[in-house]
Amino acid sequence: MNMSAPNAAPRKKDFPVSEVRRYLEPGPVVLVSSRCQGKSNIMTMGWHSILEFSPSLVGCVISSANHSFGMIRATGECVINLPTTALTDTVVNIGNVSGADIDKFAAFGLTAGKAKHVAAPLIAECHANFECKLYDDALIDEYNYFIFEVVKAHVAPQPEHPETLHYKGDGIFMISGGIINKKAMFRPGMR
Amino acid sequence: MNMSAPNAAPRKKDFPVSEVRRYLEPGPVVLVSSRCQGKSNIMTMGWHSILEFSPSLVGCVISSANHSFGMIRATGECVINLPTTALTDTVVNIGNVSGADIDKFAAFGLTAGKAKHVAAPLIAECHANFECKLYDDALIDEYNYFIFEVVKAHVAPQPEHPETLHYKGDGIFMISGGIINKKAMFRPGMR
Repeated sequence: MNMSAPNAAPRKKDFPVSEVRRYLEPGPVVLVSSRCQGKSNIMTMGWHSILEFSPSLVGCVISSANHSFGMIRATGECVINLPTTALTDTVVNIGNVSGADIDKFAAFGLTAGKAKHVAAPLIAECHANFECKLYDDALIDEYNYFIFEVVKAHVAPQPEHPETLHYKGDGIFMISGGIINKKAMFRPGMR
Repeated sequence: MNMSAPNAAPRKKDFPVSEVRRYLEPGPVVLVSSRCQGKSNIMTMGWHSILEFSPSLVGCVISSANHSFGMIRATGECVINLPTTALTDTVVNIGNVSGADIDKFAAFGLTAGKAKHVAAPLIAECHANFECKLYDDALIDEYNYFIFEVVKAHVAPQPEHPETLHYKGDGIFMISGGIINKKAMFRPGMR
């Protein structure tokens, strides 16, 4: 099996929710999947950040212009999925259309996996899947800002540093590059 | 002058504040500078995201464990500075020590530039400087989460895609890599 093929679905393992920063802190574009009233949807998202290790909190903007907004607000659940460059065109295609019009899993040949704690589906082809429950809705009305708790994380053990996409606006993605290990330079407790 | 030398200070131009996403959305580690009661400080930050284009809003976590927390809360001002890989060791060193103990500009040979709208200094050696004013403090008490408005942006025109650092935790930085241009694939209005 060619693991770099667009439709490959890497095998995942349980991963500590308190360490999801390893995948989300570098700022990758993610795919947010949701499910409401028997229908699933997917949206692209680039405006997110880690807020806390434990509980594992992620804050993000889900514009009310997105079909997913109402689904996620109503259910208080979603899955944040981490795509790699193998899915670049799919990421663009997902952002181009509205879930009000089509079933994006079917349209883009993506596999909906079963989550453990939420009804929203995992996207099997992504490198990692983070099951999320709405933790605080205080800033939704004003900023479309959702604070989620990651309640379960599924991560492919390899590659350790997946090639992620980082959106710069205007149709341009930056790709993740090499790694610099500065462990030895950090003062204890500061990493 | 070797512009890639660690202490080079690239010339900057005014940049539209509504487009700071081009630099912050891909998730780079940034340096946050502040000034309070005649003293300046710098901290590293990786937990931030764009919240809105206009007004240009950035949300970020500034842990109350940081010396900068009190300075920024008291003044309602800071500058978000974008370092490149030329400053990797400086980024680590800045995170290793507290501004309560030393003057980080002096200790690390950084040049404090004058901002236009805030008292906090620009870090001249960084690729870009974003002057920020506190816009909403609603989530500071609960999450150490500050919502800033970027009121002025200074950006070096070249290189167009600076080599930024993206923190993965545990002493490991991911470096930005190549660019993929998918402009032609995006539906109008979706970029």
